[in-house]
Amino acid sequence: MVIGRSASEAEIEFTLAYCFSCEPEPDTLWPMRTVEVSLGTRSYTIHIGSGLLTKLGDHCRRLKLGERCAIITDSNVGPRYADAAVRALKMAGFVPSVVTVTAGEGAKSLKVLGECYDQLAMKRLERRSFVVALGGGCVGDLAGFVAATYLRGISYVQVATTLLAQVDSSVGGKVGINLKSGKNLVGSFHQPRAVLCDLDTLSTLPEREFRAGMAEVVKYGVIRDPELFRRLERELDKIMKRDVNTLSNVVARCCTLKSEIVGADEYETTGVRAILNFGHTVGHGIEALSGYNEFIHGEAVSLGTVAAARLSSRLMSLPDKEADRIRDLLQRIGLPTAIKFTPKKREALFDAMRLDKKVSGGELKFVLAKSLGDVVPGQRVPDADINAVLNLIAE
Amino acid sequence: MVIGRSASEAEIEFTLAYCFSCEPEPDTLWPMRTVEVSLGTRSYTIHIGSGLLTKLGDHCRRLKLGERCAIITDSNVGPRYADAAVRALKMAGFVPSVVTVTAGEGAKSLKVLGECYDQLAMKRLERRSFVVALGGGCVGDLAGFVAATYLRGISYVQVATTLLAQVDSSVGGKVGINLKSGKNLVGSFHQPRAVLCDLDTLSTLPEREFRAGMAEVVKYGVIRDPELFRRLERELDKIMKRDVNTLSNVVARCCTLKSEIVGADEYETTGVRAILNFGHTVGHGIEALSGYNEFIHGEAVSLGTVAAARLSSRLMSLPDKEADRIRDLLQRIGLPTAIKFTPKKREALFDAMRLDKKVSGGELKFVLAKSLGDVVPGQRVPDADINAVLNLIAE
Repeated sequence: MVIGRSASEAEIEFTLAYCFSCEPEPDTLWPMRTVEVSLGTRSYTIHIGSGLLTKLGDHCRRLKLGERCAIITDSNVGPRYADAAVRALKMAGFVPSVVTVTAGEGAKSLKVLGECYDQLAMKRLERRSFVVALGGGCVGDLAGFVAATYLRGISYVQVATTLLAQVDSSVGGKVGINLKSGKNLVGSFHQPRAVLCDLDTLSTLPEREFRAGMAEVVKYGVIRDPELFRRLERELDKIMKRDVNTLSNVVARCCTLKSEIVGADEYETTGVRAILNFGHTVGHGIEALSGYNEFIHGEAVSLGTVAAARLSSRLMSLPDKEADRIRDLLQRIGLPTAIKFTPKKREALFDAMRLDKKVSGGELKFVLAKSLGDVVPGQRVPDADINAVLNLIAE
Repeated sequence: MVIGRSASEAEIEFTLAYCFSCEPEPDTLWPMRTVEVSLGTRSYTIHIGSGLLTKLGDHCRRLKLGERCAIITDSNVGPRYADAAVRALKMAGFVPSVVTVTAGEGAKSLKVLGECYDQLAMKRLERRSFVVALGGGCVGDLAGFVAATYLRGISYVQVATTLLAQVDSSVGGKVGINLKSGKNLVGSFHQPRAVLCDLDTLSTLPEREFRAGMAEVVKYGVIRDPELFRRLERELDKIMKRDVNTLSNVVARCCTLKSEIVGADEYETTGVRAILNFGHTVGHGIEALSGYNEFIHGEAVSLGTVAAARLSSRLMSLPDKEADRIRDLLQRIGLPTAIKFTPKKREALFDAMRLDKKVSGGELKFVLAKSLGDVVPGQRVPDADINAVLNLIAE
């Protein structure tokens, strides 16, 4: 798929290419969709499809990467897929080693970062060596940051095994770790050399994780693509059953949207990229409030999305019934759209929001929607309006 | 000074500007030399002169940096100069805090890095905030890496207080920390927004540190500028007495040379930058061998420079008497040019050289000189030749 084409054009291209490739040559990797992320010398391709993990070595060979590599994975994903990754890399002539970190947000710590560095140094990875990030968002963020900083930056290839990683964190090169005082406070912009979204790996993804990933999918519809939003409403059953064909369309469309946004604002300096934070101002607050336990990221974003939609109706031109549609879709997915507030919890939420790293000059700013598919970043919102909207998302 | 002009042209410009500025306007910062480092949007100016520390705030204001900042310094430099830096920043309307780390190579560790991050988060530094690196090479490398990665990168200004930092590590944006398994194994390329080389701070620099800095000064003559080399031979007495006028010429010339090299190879990808490693292959090995204690960086580089010069005579066209001149100049500076080897120590040196991060494909490569001022990187050298040359630098 080429950036900027509509999903339906891409579908036609895909169908044709697939039909004419019934007897694929050994060197082709069908059935697969691709999204190009255009960032000059840092451009790369996202590959989306079935059975991609077995082709990992071939993809790395095409990138002319060095022989030695380290697969960084976690204790959930590693036992399932690390062997396949090692096999694929060895078949292609690489010398992989595996670094397994404990699954969860805890992996994104300075301590685990140091352990990864030590492993890479012990295995004598050098400048042409590379890292394979095998897992979801946390592994991708950690492994990407290891690659960004080991020997002042080596290559990495991302194999995204969660829906969230496939549609969101695999695109755009934001990598990093957490500090005790906040999430993602340390990191870099470091683009992968390639991303593989193997849809087969979603089959083992826990239901809760899959739903959480869908919160970001819905977000893309809200911020940029009403047609995608309608498709989600229409094809939700197939999506939730993880139908590979439907999912490949949806994942490719999300990657295309995000790559367009990132292409316009790689280093988050022009403000364009800020629209990706729709639903994230309240979302991050709720996540921090619950100690990152009660609600996982996508669930907090779901709540934040409802809040941002309600604020958009209150302060911008978004019709109430469109805000209802957003909430209804999230509800159908099985995501939380209401939360219990005590007065103390509400105060803590305000504090957490003000601590977020996106706050500048101490001011809380929101991305708000003028209509479905059209949002504006950097909107100041008075505390009174936030309070009123929190009432609307209170159970 | 403008890149590419000869030192003498720059001298004339400097003298004229200084003469015509006997009554400086409040906004001018004379007497001072400047070197522009041209790296597109990452370009910056190096200011070289007396009394620059008191102008730190003015320089930061011109860069339109955010209000809050953190001065990262060490236990040697902080007690001497942190107060002046704080005063200068406050006068210009900034809100500085001071982070003091223990002096020495130990500061470049993951542990100290984490402590710096925590301080910055506690002081609520945000995206427009900035770091001031106040000190020598270690503080610059650490503070630069903190700035490169805190909130995915904030600005930093370097106040270089050692000769080594002024002529070498302040130019080029290489920042980073050490791992147990090796020096500078973790880092980034992150250019400062400005560099101040306050020559007054050199007056408190211990003699051993000053001499060590001179090893890199000599290197610039050897790799790129026979005229600078001759000037060093001619004016060494004034330089060693730290005469500010002579030093400002020398420091500016070194910064110009390095900025030309870095401008041609910012990310160490084209190979041009590799010539800066003249004398460093054996130098890094000796440093590692002595556990970074017996010889400090510049002393090890001095030994490595003699070795590289001898190898150049043996394998390239460098006349023996030119290699003698290099050794003689280093000797006059008071730097070591010979080392005691036991057979065991010699073996350990080979091992240490092979562990260096610049080794690619397990092969040892040298920068060698065809003549004074003309070197070529990437030269494979047989172990037999290295051994023969080690005999020549053995006491």
